[in-house]
Amino acid sequence: MKWIAFKVGGRESFGIVKGDKIIDISAFFVESECPKSLVELISEPEKLEHITNQQETMNGSISLKDVQFLPAIMPPNNVLAIGKNYRKHVLEMGSAADIPEAIMIFTKSRNTLVGNRGQIPLHAEVTRELDYEGELAVVIGKQVTNATEDAAMDAIFGYTIINDVTARDLQGKHKQFYIAKSLDGTCPIGPYVVTKDEIPSPSELRIQTFVNEELRQDGKLDQMIFSIATIIVELSKGHTLVPGDVIATGTPDGVGKGMNPPNFLRAGDTVSVTIEGIGTLENQVM
Amino acid sequence: MKWIAFKVGGRESFGIVKGDKIIDISAFFVESECPKSLVELISEPEKLEHITNQQETMNGSISLKDVQFLPAIMPPNNVLAIGKNYRKHVLEMGSAADIPEAIMIFTKSRNTLVGNRGQIPLHAEVTRELDYEGELAVVIGKQVTNATEDAAMDAIFGYTIINDVTARDLQGKHKQFYIAKSLDGTCPIGPYVVTKDEIPSPSELRIQTFVNEELRQDGKLDQMIFSIATIIVELSKGHTLVPGDVIATGTPDGVGKGMNPPNFLRAGDTVSVTIEGIGTLENQVM
Repeated sequence: MKWIAFKVGGRESFGIVKGDKIIDISAFFVESECPKSLVELISEPEKLEHITNQQETMNGSISLKDVQFLPAIMPPNNVLAIGKNYRKHVLEMGSAADIPEAIMIFTKSRNTLVGNRGQIPLHAEVTRELDYEGELAVVIGKQVTNATEDAAMDAIFGYTIINDVTARDLQGKHKQFYIAKSLDGTCPIGPYVVTKDEIPSPSELRIQTFVNEELRQDGKLDQMIFSIATIIVELSKGHTLVPGDVIATGTPDGVGKGMNPPNFLRAGDTVSVTIEGIGTLENQVM
Repeated sequence: MKWIAFKVGGRESFGIVKGDKIIDISAFFVESECPKSLVELISEPEKLEHITNQQETMNGSISLKDVQFLPAIMPPNNVLAIGKNYRKHVLEMGSAADIPEAIMIFTKSRNTLVGNRGQIPLHAEVTRELDYEGELAVVIGKQVTNATEDAAMDAIFGYTIINDVTARDLQGKHKQFYIAKSLDGTCPIGPYVVTKDEIPSPSELRIQTFVNEELRQDGKLDQMIFSIATIIVELSKGHTLVPGDVIATGTPDGVGKGMNPPNFLRAGDTVSVTIEGIGTLENQVM
């Protein structure tokens, strides 16, 4: 299934995409039983199963073209992100000495989230080096602590795309990455959350980032230094992951900072990140 | 006012401490209007004003000694924390070269929060270097972006205490601080949130941390490299703070890692952090 959060006619909701239509979540439940967000739904396996059983024979009633996309997961419990997880990206940002021996983990504020086609503020008063990072993101569907590799993969609900927009000057200045990664509106997420049954081998997928139709990043997800399973295993050591946690898995090479000369985002730029099987996350910088 | 979150007779609630009694939040509202958490209340200024006006002539009905403390703020929007904010602490951890020129900001997971007298897990399978950090924490009461110093101080709802428990070996290994600071149960917070009108000059306060009655940290809050106002000004640049954000302001010298030889926490240890005017946050390591 392909989940979308959206706004239509002033109303915010979420549902399943089928072709060019959306089945609204309200089609599956009486009002008092209806989950208010995908995160709430993920936390209730029996409701999720009810939908899985019902939806095959149902058709959507809302046209995809009529809705405004909202952040695909909102509100998440936490937005976790992995730094320096592709070798060539580490090299473009520094040197081989920076290739991590253990995963680097930071978070992004919930205020960063915007939906597909939402705007990324340029934040010109705070940064002169706003940069993009196209990434696969994992959405956690089950509470898990000290996971084995099998339990790690079992804890995944689905996958989405994140553009981990980063203020490079702040990243250097503040040492710890949080603030450089957490300016308002700097985490486009979406367009959809695709359940894991539709993506049996995420490592075979290709990820591409375009700025104004110029291809900047073109990676394969099997280039990750730490695999998806390893990330969840490592992250869950003494640290409980819960439904609604989102984990951005790192970006391949090709960011603006790595170009010669560096080429940061400008007002009016359109950034799009495409992952096969999930879709294209497109946002304009304003 | 001094706010407490608590559990009594299987019921979770919050309220105001008066002497040795608590006025439950339900005493101020009809059920349908009653906020479910202090964070929800903080976000509704008219309800807060109603309580401020009513509470002076009211008395509590629940004995403080009968309740179990819950995390003083739960669920927070975000738990932010400032690294290396006391000169002597930077020196005990490294050298003068590490004194930050810009604030270092990281976050702690919401799964870290425990109340006063709750247990801190030793996490012996994940770390051999669990350490304490007594800190003043600011609770944000108003949404604020790009704050001036005046707006920064105006955005504060109150103050509490955080023990920013840290796995020192993970802090070095993973470079970014998040995971070393986010093991489950490693953020005792409380015992109370004291509104800012009761603490007109937080920088004059003393903070002391004891491990099993041995004094380990003994600092004054005016020793911060970045003041409370500066922290909020810097943090709010392009990054919106919202009611329910908690900011731990850094720890003075005297942590276990800085001792010679280093002296980390052991099962059975009791750690207590006292700040004048707020109280004592006491937790046992298990």
